[in-house]
Amino acid sequence: MTLGDELRIALDGKWRHVREQSRKELAEMDLLYDHDLTLHEARARVLEQMRKLVPTGIPAAGYKVEAGGTGDPGMAVTGIEMLAQFDLSLMVKAGVQWGLFGGAIENLGTKAHHERYVKDLINLDLLGCFAMTETGHGSDVQSLETTATYDQATQEFVIDSPTPSSRKDYIGGAAEHATVAAVFAQLITKGESHGVHCFVVPIRDEHGDDLPGVTTSDCGHKGGLGAVDNGRIVFNGVRIPRENLLNRYGQVDEGGTYSSPIDNVNRRFFTMLGTLIRGRVSVGGSASAAAEVALSIAGRYALQRTQFGPKDGPEVTLMDYRMHQRRLLPLIARSYAYRFAQNQLVARMHRLQTSDVPDAQQSRELEGRAAGLKAAQTWHATTAIQEAREACGGAGYLAENRLTTLKGDTDVFTTFEGDNHVLFQLVAKELLTSYASEVGGLDPVGMVKFVASTATDVVKERTAAAQLIQRLIDARPGRSDDDHDLLDRGTQLGLFEDREEHVLETAARRLRRAAGKPEDEAFAIFNAAQDHVIRLGRVHVQRVVLEAFTAGIARCQDPDAQDLLRDVCSLYALTEIESDLAWFMGHHRISDARAKTVTGLVNDLLDKLAPQTLTLVEGFGVPQASLGAEMLAH
Amino acid sequence: MTLGDELRIALDGKWRHVREQSRKELAEMDLLYDHDLTLHEARARVLEQMRKLVPTGIPAAGYKVEAGGTGDPGMAVTGIEMLAQFDLSLMVKAGVQWGLFGGAIENLGTKAHHERYVKDLINLDLLGCFAMTETGHGSDVQSLETTATYDQATQEFVIDSPTPSSRKDYIGGAAEHATVAAVFAQLITKGESHGVHCFVVPIRDEHGDDLPGVTTSDCGHKGGLGAVDNGRIVFNGVRIPRENLLNRYGQVDEGGTYSSPIDNVNRRFFTMLGTLIRGRVSVGGSASAAAEVALSIAGRYALQRTQFGPKDGPEVTLMDYRMHQRRLLPLIARSYAYRFAQNQLVARMHRLQTSDVPDAQQSRELEGRAAGLKAAQTWHATTAIQEAREACGGAGYLAENRLTTLKGDTDVFTTFEGDNHVLFQLVAKELLTSYASEVGGLDPVGMVKFVASTATDVVKERTAAAQLIQRLIDARPGRSDDDHDLLDRGTQLGLFEDREEHVLETAARRLRRAAGKPEDEAFAIFNAAQDHVIRLGRVHVQRVVLEAFTAGIARCQDPDAQDLLRDVCSLYALTEIESDLAWFMGHHRISDARAKTVTGLVNDLLDKLAPQTLTLVEGFGVPQASLGAEMLAH
Repeated sequence: MTLGDELRIALDGKWRHVREQSRKELAEMDLLYDHDLTLHEARARVLEQMRKLVPTGIPAAGYKVEAGGTGDPGMAVTGIEMLAQFDLSLMVKAGVQWGLFGGAIENLGTKAHHERYVKDLINLDLLGCFAMTETGHGSDVQSLETTATYDQATQEFVIDSPTPSSRKDYIGGAAEHATVAAVFAQLITKGESHGVHCFVVPIRDEHGDDLPGVTTSDCGHKGGLGAVDNGRIVFNGVRIPRENLLNRYGQVDEGGTYSSPIDNVNRRFFTMLGTLIRGRVSVGGSASAAAEVALSIAGRYALQRTQFGPKDGPEVTLMDYRMHQRRLLPLIARSYAYRFAQNQLVARMHRLQTSDVPDAQQSRELEGRAAGLKAAQTWHATTAIQEAREACGGAGYLAENRLTTLKGDTDVFTTFEGDNHVLFQLVAKELLTSYASEVGGLDPVGMVKFVASTATDVVKERTAAAQLIQRLIDARPGRSDDDHDLLDRGTQLGLFEDREEHVLETAARRLRRAAGKPEDEAFAIFNAAQDHVIRLGRVHVQRVVLEAFTAGIARCQDPDAQDLLRDVCSLYALTEIESDLAWFMGHHRISDARAKTVTGLVNDLLDKLAPQTLTLVEGFGVPQASLGAEMLAH
Repeated sequence: MTLGDELRIALDGKWRHVREQSRKELAEMDLLYDHDLTLHEARARVLEQMRKLVPTGIPAAGYKVEAGGTGDPGMAVTGIEMLAQFDLSLMVKAGVQWGLFGGAIENLGTKAHHERYVKDLINLDLLGCFAMTETGHGSDVQSLETTATYDQATQEFVIDSPTPSSRKDYIGGAAEHATVAAVFAQLITKGESHGVHCFVVPIRDEHGDDLPGVTTSDCGHKGGLGAVDNGRIVFNGVRIPRENLLNRYGQVDEGGTYSSPIDNVNRRFFTMLGTLIRGRVSVGGSASAAAEVALSIAGRYALQRTQFGPKDGPEVTLMDYRMHQRRLLPLIARSYAYRFAQNQLVARMHRLQTSDVPDAQQSRELEGRAAGLKAAQTWHATTAIQEAREACGGAGYLAENRLTTLKGDTDVFTTFEGDNHVLFQLVAKELLTSYASEVGGLDPVGMVKFVASTATDVVKERTAAAQLIQRLIDARPGRSDDDHDLLDRGTQLGLFEDREEHVLETAARRLRRAAGKPEDEAFAIFNAAQDHVIRLGRVHVQRVVLEAFTAGIARCQDPDAQDLLRDVCSLYALTEIESDLAWFMGHHRISDARAKTVTGLVNDLLDKLAPQTLTLVEGFGVPQASLGAEMLAH
C-alpha cells in the first residue's frame, strides 16, 4: 500500500465500502457532462443515468426498512457525495428525487404514504420534485405564500398560488420530468392557517402534460447543472385528496379539524424542516467532493506543467513555485479538514437517524452542525475550484479539462438549502440560545466570570473525541514567546476555542441590549450586529473542523500517514490563523513578534508538503475516469 | 441632472462622448448572448455583430492616420470596454481582430504592411488572429517553440511547429473565422536564432479550408465566451514570402542577413511586446465594465427583493441588511476606484501613443501600470461578479439574469495577457529595478536612510495629481490616537505609500542576497521571496488606485457628487486597510486600539452609503438594454 492509499483510507471514513463500490461502478457508467447536448437531451441522458443507479442499492439505503428501504442513511449520503465526483447534474437530480422528494415522503409522511410511494420512487417509477422555494421566498420558507385550503364538502385540499411571488421557482424536476410534487404550502382549514405543511400534488399526466390547474414552465439555461430541469409551478385551484397531506406533524380530520403532536406553530415547522437535514449534509459533502476533484486536477497539472526557471537551466514545474504552493496546498489542506468534519457529521446523522429514540438536543446540535458545515464547504468549493481553474491557465478554461464545469455546477451550492450567510446566522443563533439559557440569569460581572470558566462546555459537545482535544489543550506549552508553539496542536485548538468563546460572549452582550425593546428597535440592534453574528458562525465551524481533523488523525492507523496528516492539519490551522491574524493580534492572543512568524511557518510547511502533492491528491481517491481532464494526458 | 448623472460624468472621464455614443448605438444592436445557439451559430452571430460595429468608427480609431485609421487610441480602447457591458464574446472577438491582430500589424509592421492590411482589417474584409500562445508556453512567451526559418533559395520563411508543445493554442479566431494569423515564432536565418518575431501567415482559403501545411482544430466548449472560436494551429513547412515578416524591429535581407535597430535580443523582444500594451489595457477595462454591470444588477435587485424583517412587521429589503451592505458596497466602491485608475491609464496611453517622440521611461512605467491594473481589475471582476451572483440567490443562477454569463465570460481574464501573478511580479520587478538603479551603490545603512527620505520619489511619478497627493499627505493630522484620522485622505494615502515603501525596501533587501550567486541559487532565493514580491505588486497598485481616486474627486465639478465620492473613496481605502490590518498592526502603522475602530468606521460608511445604492450604480451608466435581467422586471 502506498502512502496515498493510507491517506485515502483515513479520508474514506466509515462508509469506505460505499466509496470503493462507487469508484468502480460509476467509473464504468460514462457520466461526465456532454456540453454538445441541448438542455433537453442532457436532461434525458441524466435520467437514463439515474436508472443505472437504482441497482447499486444506494437509492434504497436512504429509507427505513419498514418504509421499503434498506435503512442505511450514511450509505445514502455517501453515495450521493460520490456522484459529485463525476457529474453534479446527476448528483442534484439524484438528490432531488431520493433525498428531497423521497425524504419529504418518508420524514413528513406516515405509513400509508410510505407504502404508496417509497418503492416506486426508489425504482424511479414515480418521479417527484420538491416544491418548497417560491419566487418571493427562498431563505425565509416560513413565509411561503402558496395555500392549501381544506374543502370539507369534498374532503380535498385546494392548492393555489395567490400572488406572482408565490410561484414555485427553481424546482429541480418541475420543467420536464416530475409527475408529482411535494408542495410546501400554508395549511388553511376552517378559515385558520396552521403554517407550512407538505402535500403530495400530481402535476403532470403520463404524456408529460400539465394537469388541470397546474402551469409549469422552464427556468432555462443556468450557470451550470445543465441536465437538471429546473422549472416553475403555478397552482390554480388544484384539488388533491385529504390523504395527500403528509401528516406526521399535522393532521386534518374529515370534518376539517386540525391537530398536531406539536402545539407551537414555530416549533412544529422547524421540527419538520429538521427532518430534512439530509439535504444540507449532501450538498456540503458534494461541494467538498467537487473541490477535491478540482484540486486533484490542478495538483497533477502543476506537477507536469513547466514554465520559466533559472537562467539557462531547465524549466521548473509550477509546483516548484512558492506562489503556486501557496495557491493550492492550503486549499488541499482545507479539503482534508472538511472531509474529516463531513465524515464525523455523516456518522452522527446516521447514528441519530437509526436510533429508536432520537435525542432532541442532539438533533438540534446536528442541524446546526450541518448548516455550518454546508456553508463552509460550499464556499470552500467556490474558492478552491476557482483557484484550480486559474492555476491551470488557459487550459483550465477549456470544458474538456472539467474545471469550468465543476465551477459552474457547484456555484449555486452556496445558495442551495439556504443562503450561506443565513445558515451561519442559524448556527450562531443556536449557540447564542444555548448560551443565554445557561447564563441568562447572571449579572454582567457574573456573566464574564461564567464565560471565563465554563463557556467551553456550553459550545462544545461532550464526545469521546472531546477528551482528546481537551488533553491536547491542557498539554499545550505556556504562552511564552517561543515561536514554535504555533505548531503545537493544543495551542492551535486553544486559539480557535478561545476565539469562539470571545466572539460568542461579545455577540451575546451586544444582543442583550435588544431585550425588552420594541420589535423594530430589536431588529435594528440585531442587524447592526449581523456581521458579528455571522462571524460567530464562521469561527465556530473553524473550531469544529480543527477538532474533527485532530480526531481523524488519532483514528488513522498508519504512522507515516499520521505524520503527513499532522503537517496538513497544521497548514490548515495556520492558514486560518493567518487570515484572521488581525483579530488574534488585536485581542492579544498572538503577540506582534509571534504574528510575524506565522507566514514563515506556513512557508516552511509548504516546503515540506510540496513534494507530497501527488500523494496528497491521491488521498482524495478521485478515480481516473472522473479526473477526465484532457490536459493531464499530455 | 440627477446626482447619478453627475457621478456618471465623473466616471466617464475624457472619452465620455465615446461612452455616450456606445450606450445609444450598442443598445439598439441586440447584443446579449443567446444560450440557445450552438457554438457554430453563436460564432456566426457575433461576426455579424462585428460588422455592425465598423460604421461606429471605433475600429478605425485604433490606427494612426498614416496607417489608414483615425488616430484616437483612447477612443478605440474605450469603445472596446463599452462592448464588455453588453457581451464579452463580442468584446473579445473585436479585441482580437482590431486590437491584437491589427495591433500587431500596425505596431510590429512597417508601411508596406499598413498599406496592404489595415484598411481591410478595419472593414473586416480581412479576418485575422493573434497566434502567440502555445500549448507549452503562455506566460513565458520568450520561450515559444514555433520556428520561422529563412530559405534563401526561395526568399521565403518556413513556419514549423517542431514539437507537440509548440502547437498554437487557445487562439481566438483560429477555429473558424480567421484566414490569416499573426504568428509569433523564433526567427532563424543562416542557422542562427534571433528570438521571437511576428509573421503574417495565411491559414485558410476562401472556403474556410486549411491551407497546405496548416492544421487547425477547435478548442470546443469553454467556461464562457461561447461565441469566440478559439482554436489550435499546427504548422508543417508552411512557406510565406520574406515580406510577411513584420519587420519594424527586425529585418532579414534577401541574402538572409538579419538586422535590427535594437541589438540586445531581450530588449528587442520586450520592446516588441511593449507596443502591444493596448491588449492589457482593454482586458482590464473590460473586466471592470463587466463587474459594473454585475454590481448594477445585484444592487438594484437588493433594493427590490425583501426577505424577513422585524417580527410582525413588513419584510425589509436585502439592502437594509448590514451583511448585504458589507457584501456589495465595498465592491461598488472598488469599482469606482478602478474606473478612475483606468481612465487615468487610458489617458496616459493615449498621450504616449499619439506623441511624436514617445518617452522610453514613460513607456516602461505605462507597461507596469497596465500590467498591475489588469491584474487588479480582473481579480476584482472575478470577486465582484461572484458576490453579485450569490447576493441574488437562485435568481442569480439563471442565465436570464446575466450574472452567470458575466462570470463565465470574464473568468479567463485573469489568465488573458499573462497570468495575474506573473503580471504582479512584472510590476514588482520594474519597481525593484528602478529602486536598485538609484540605491544600488549605497551601503546598507545608507540604503535605509535613503529609503526613509526619498523612496517615495522612486516609486511615484511626478504628475500634476502628485502635487495634490503630496499636499494631502503633508496636511494629515499627526499620529495621535484620534480615531477619526483614519477617515482623513492624507492619512490613508500616507499609509498606502508607507506600506509600499516598506514592502519594496524589504523585498529589495531579500533579493540582494541573490547577487553574485550561481543561477540556481539565485532562482531559489527569488522563489522563496515570491509571495513577498507579488505582494509588492499588489500594494503598489492599491496605492496607485487610491491616488487616482483622489485625483478623480478633485476633477469632479459637482459639489454633491464630490461629497458622495469622498465617502466612496474612504470606503475603498478603509476596506483595503481592513483586509491588510494585520500588516499595519504588526508594523506599528496602526495601533491595536485604533485597529479595533476600523470595522466600526467601515460600518458607519455603509450606513451612510446604503441609501445611495441606486445613485451609485446609476453612476456606472450601464444602459437598460445591457442590464437585461429578467428578475429586475418583477
